[in-house]
This record gives sequence, structure tokens and C-alpha cells, in this order.
Amino acid sequence: MRTLSVDLARGAYPILIADGLLGRGDEMARHLPAPVAVVTSETVRPLYAEALAARLGDACAGVCALPDGERHKTLESVTAVHTWLLERGLGRDATLLAVGGGMIGDIAGFAAATYMRGIDFVQAPTTLLAQVDASIGGKTGVNHPLGKNMVGAFWQPRAVLIDPVTLASLPERELRAGVAEIIKYGLLGDAALFAWLEEHVEALLAREPEALAHAIEASCACKARIVAADEREQGMRALLNLGHTFAHAIETEQGYAQWLHGEAVGCGMALAADLAVRMDWLAAADAERAIALIARAGLPVRLPDGLSAPALRAHMGRDKKNRAGQLRLVLLRGIGAAEVCAQADERLLAATLEGARR
Amino acid sequence: MRTLSVDLARGAYPILIADGLLGRGDEMARHLPAPVAVVTSETVRPLYAEALAARLGDACAGVCALPDGERHKTLESVTAVHTWLLERGLGRDATLLAVGGGMIGDIAGFAAATYMRGIDFVQAPTTLLAQVDASIGGKTGVNHPLGKNMVGAFWQPRAVLIDPVTLASLPERELRAGVAEIIKYGLLGDAALFAWLEEHVEALLAREPEALAHAIEASCACKARIVAADEREQGMRALLNLGHTFAHAIETEQGYAQWLHGEAVGCGMALAADLAVRMDWLAAADAERAIALIARAGLPVRLPDGLSAPALRAHMGRDKKNRAGQLRLVLLRGIGAAEVCAQADERLLAATLEGARR
Repeated sequence: MRTLSVDLARGAYPILIADGLLGRGDEMARHLPAPVAVVTSETVRPLYAEALAARLGDACAGVCALPDGERHKTLESVTAVHTWLLERGLGRDATLLAVGGGMIGDIAGFAAATYMRGIDFVQAPTTLLAQVDASIGGKTGVNHPLGKNMVGAFWQPRAVLIDPVTLASLPERELRAGVAEIIKYGLLGDAALFAWLEEHVEALLAREPEALAHAIEASCACKARIVAADEREQGMRALLNLGHTFAHAIETEQGYAQWLHGEAVGCGMALAADLAVRMDWLAAADAERAIALIARAGLPVRLPDGLSAPALRAHMGRDKKNRAGQLRLVLLRGIGAAEVCAQADERLLAATLEGARR
Repeated sequence: MRTLSVDLARGAYPILIADGLLGRGDEMARHLPAPVAVVTSETVRPLYAEALAARLGDACAGVCALPDGERHKTLESVTAVHTWLLERGLGRDATLLAVGGGMIGDIAGFAAATYMRGIDFVQAPTTLLAQVDASIGGKTGVNHPLGKNMVGAFWQPRAVLIDPVTLASLPERELRAGVAEIIKYGLLGDAALFAWLEEHVEALLAREPEALAHAIEASCACKARIVAADEREQGMRALLNLGHTFAHAIETEQGYAQWLHGEAVGCGMALAADLAVRMDWLAAADAERAIALIARAGLPVRLPDGLSAPALRAHMGRDKKNRAGQLRLVLLRGIGAAEVCAQADERLLAATLEGARR
């Protein structure tokens, strides 16, 4: 078992990483004060959630399964969780356990943050993207028709319980989406991880256990460090948004129905690298390394068909990082070195968006 | 100008009380970093919100008015605020100003807590109930079909700006509803305030400025003291719920459409006093004093027509204070002395509910 810690002002919480962790009822129960409400997706329910609930025995109040798909990441799903909790008479002493991908963690976390003004929750992520990124750091929330993740709260889990064995059942496309976030950590702050990925990205995609273990632990450590330094994104935490301003604009324009989040992030990082070169922030050779790795992971590096550059630019104007109407983008200075850019050149940005069309 | 302070672990915020405060643009602006989004009700919009927005000038991004009535205290109203903010391109640096009664403060506060994972907000309460209670302490939220205030967050305002002049336009019935919460402070922790109310309740109902000023300041001081000691209701803050478990059950059973919250609280306090006598917690003479004062304020001391005791008991079983399925009621030991009761006798509770039917 590997254990990391997210050290926050109000106290620390652990990230546990171990093959087979979800099968160890005793270890799970230690982090899950009863009564436990399991929130999961319809896909993950039969794979892991039901078995886990059975292992928890009387401590578990039941399993609440939500429909899959980013288009269900809405307040309606949050209300469905609240209704489920209220119908079972669960109170402020309940613990909500999210078993699933990033969407389930985001919805369940926000449901926990807002049920009776806040109850405890624990993350048991079962996708690569959730294991390396979404489950850590307390960002919870849902989409608004006018923008992704616009409605939410900072609400930290009591623990993050990661079982890489669950990745065996993950569809190929979702695995690659998770690799996008691992590449992100390399690009924004861990040049050694980036170099390791250049050597091992195929091993990772082949789900070799050692490669998965290394990538998950390195990513969690990077995220935990940044979150501990800046829990509420008043400074460096914004760097975790590398590629995300482009990505959210793509996802919003698509109505959250086509690309996976990690695919949009892959494309967004390629665009951020391109813009950084145009702005003389980044050497062209480093941008080529970044874009080549994203492509090797099987992720898109150009925009989806038919998206208009002005429409994307309009969505970017509603990004949460913006201040006083000014766009704030995370761009690269080098491999392993990201920075917030508050003065993106609109002409160069337009050129990047135009150039990335198919 | 009277200034009180709510001292919390993360920092303090002021409560300012002054006749004519809303008309002083300079003083208001000092507590309202631009851009300011004014959230109000359709009723309060023409009375105070539009004029205030005009006084703030360019710092104000506009006025978002919500429909009146507790049945609109829902997530749909929160979404309406979010949509309004997004359509105007407002970001994390916006300040949300709630101008109105407790419902507006609760909805606007929750909208602020959850917009882009949290933006600043300021309370400018315009009803007596909001001035003495709802605007202070950071409880925000909306109703769920299965229970009142079941969805929400703790989110503290940056400031509470109270202008008692606004009470001149308050309907008589809402004034009395506010007096219910003032009586509550007297009963739960301030015997001197209770005795003062026994002398001055008619002056308060006649809106005599000195009486209003005293009652508002004493109530705010009591609330600020309790919130500072227990921001997240892990202990003594529960005492502020005196009468509220009964009240929420009444309001839920009525579908939030008949009694005002303060009316339900008046009745709930009378029931809490009755149950406390049946349980030998409270002297019958003290219960009579409490019930007599509630009645003098024009508040109900018996249940509304046609409500069934078992239905009310079922709603009480979903109260947020309950633990492990066990009802936790706030009851009186004496005038000015409340306590949480974790072992209410079901037979005596049933007798109280039956006895309070018309």
C-alpha cells in the first residue's frame, strides 16, 4: 500500500493506493464511518459498487446509481442523490462514498457538500482520470447549460481510496483520456514525469501494472503538492488548468456529448503549446515534444470537425479563471514549467484556433 | 451607526445597523467590491433594490429579481441567479448583494456559495426576520420537496448591512413573523431580552424606532455570539433551532405555501414549551409566560387546521439535527435557557402534537 497525504489548513487526508483495495472490506470500513451511502454510475454499479456495498454489510445504507454520460452532470443528478438520501432517512452523520469516474466524484462530492449543508464523503475512483486527478483536491460540481463546472463547491474528501485493479475493465478510450491528465502533470510541473512518459506511454496504454502504479503515484503526488499550497485556487492551483480553458470551450460547444473530458484536455494542451510558441513563450521543439506525446497517447491534437473559432472564443470568455473580463490562460514556458498568462494576444489566439481546425 | 462583529476562525465580518444606511451610497460601496450583482425579490425591487443599484453606479452590473414566496425557494431559483450571472459574463471577482427578506438571502447566499465554487456576498436584509436572524451566520440554502432547507451550504457574508427604515414598508404579518425570532433569542439565551419583550412587544409591533433598534441589536448580538462559538452547528448553535423542528415539519406539510416561517416558529416554540413541561424540564408558569408572549405578538400557538400529528412526526424524523435516526429537539429548561434533548419521549411528544390541534 502506498499512502500520500493532502495537507490542508483544516487538516490532512490520505490517498491510499493499492491493488485490490476495494476488495478489502476491513481497510475500506476503516475510512468509512457508518451509515455509508454508495453513489455510483449504472455502469460501475455491477462491476464494483454492489460488491463493495455487500462487503460493508450493515454499515452500508444502499447503492444510488446515476446514469452515465457527461450530459447527466447536472443539478438534476445532484437532486436525485439528495432525494435518495432523504427517502432513506439519512442525516448529517452519513458518509457518502463515490465509486466511479470523475463525473460520479464531482456529482457525489457536490451532493455531499450541499446535503444538509455538508456531510462527509470519500472517493473511490475507478477510472484513470479520476485516480490521477478528479478525486483529489476537493473540486466538486456540475455543468450549467452556459458552461462546464460552473456550479460547485470546494469540498474535500476524508480519504481517497485508489484500486488500480479497477482499470482492467476501463474502455480503451477512457484509459487514453486519463493519460491526458498524466501528461498534464509532466508538462506543468514535472519534467522527469514527462521524460518517463516519453519512454513508457505505450506500457501505460498496455496497462502494465508497474507503469500504472508509477504514473498514478507521481500524478497524485504532484496534485497533492499543488492543492496543499493553494486549496482554493487563488494562485498556483490555476496551473492544473493547463489546456482546460480550450477543453471546456470545446466540451461546452459540443454540449458535453461527444469528446471525453480527457480528449478535450489533450487537444487543449496541444493548442496551449501552439499559442505559447506563437507568443514566444515556448521553444518550437518543446511544443513538438508535447504535441507528439499527446498524439502517441491516441489523443486529438486538432479541433473536432465543424467547431467555429469565434464560438470557442466566446465560451473561453466565460472561464472561471478570468478576472474583470480578461482572459487568463495557462501556457507553457518549457516542459515542466507552466504559467498563467493574463494578456493573451487575441490575434495569435485566433491564429491558434484557426490553425487547429481540420 | 452601531457595529457588531461576527468573529470566526477564518476572520471576522461586520454587522452595521443604521437608519437610512441603504441610502448612503458611499458607505454601501465601501463593503461592496465591484462588480456588484444585486439579487432581490420582485416586491423589493421597486422599493429598495433599484434605487440602491442606481446609487452604486457603474460598480453595479444590474438587478436580478426572483419571484416572491417560499415555494420559489428552490434550486430552480438558484439556477436562475447563475444564468443571470453567466449571461452578464460575471466571474469569480463579482460580489453578490442580497437585498430582501430571509428567502432572498438564503437563495442568493447559496447561489454565491456555488457559483464557480464560491464568490463573495453581502447581506442587506429588508425584513425584521432577516435583520435579526437569517442574514447572520452563513446558513444558506433552499428547500427540497422532502424537507425545508435540506440543500445548502455554510457560506459567510463579507458584511451584513441593516437599515431598519426598510421595516416601514413591511406588511404587519411579516413584522410579527420577525418578532417570533426575537422572542426565540430571549427564550433560548437572553432572559433580559425576554423580560424587555414582555414590557415592549406592543411598542415593537407599533414599529417604534427605539424599540426596533434595541430588539435588532440585542438579537444580532445574541446570534453573533452563538455563531462565533460554533460556526458549523456542531454544538450550541443547534439551540438557535428552538421551535424549528416543529416549524419545519409544519411548513413542509403545508408545502411551504401557507404560514410564514416566523409564524411556524411561533407555534413551534409554544409546542416546545408544552413538551418541556410534559417532560418535567420546564415549570408550567414559565411555559405560560412563553406562550403568552408568543400570542401577544399575534403569532399562532396551536397547529394549523387539518394537519395530522403522525404526518408532522414523520417530517420531524428527517430533521437535520437528528443523529442515527434519533430525534434531537431543542427544549427549554427555563426562560433564557435552552438545551438539546436527544431522548424525547414519543408518548409525550404525541400528546403535545395532539393537544395543539385545534
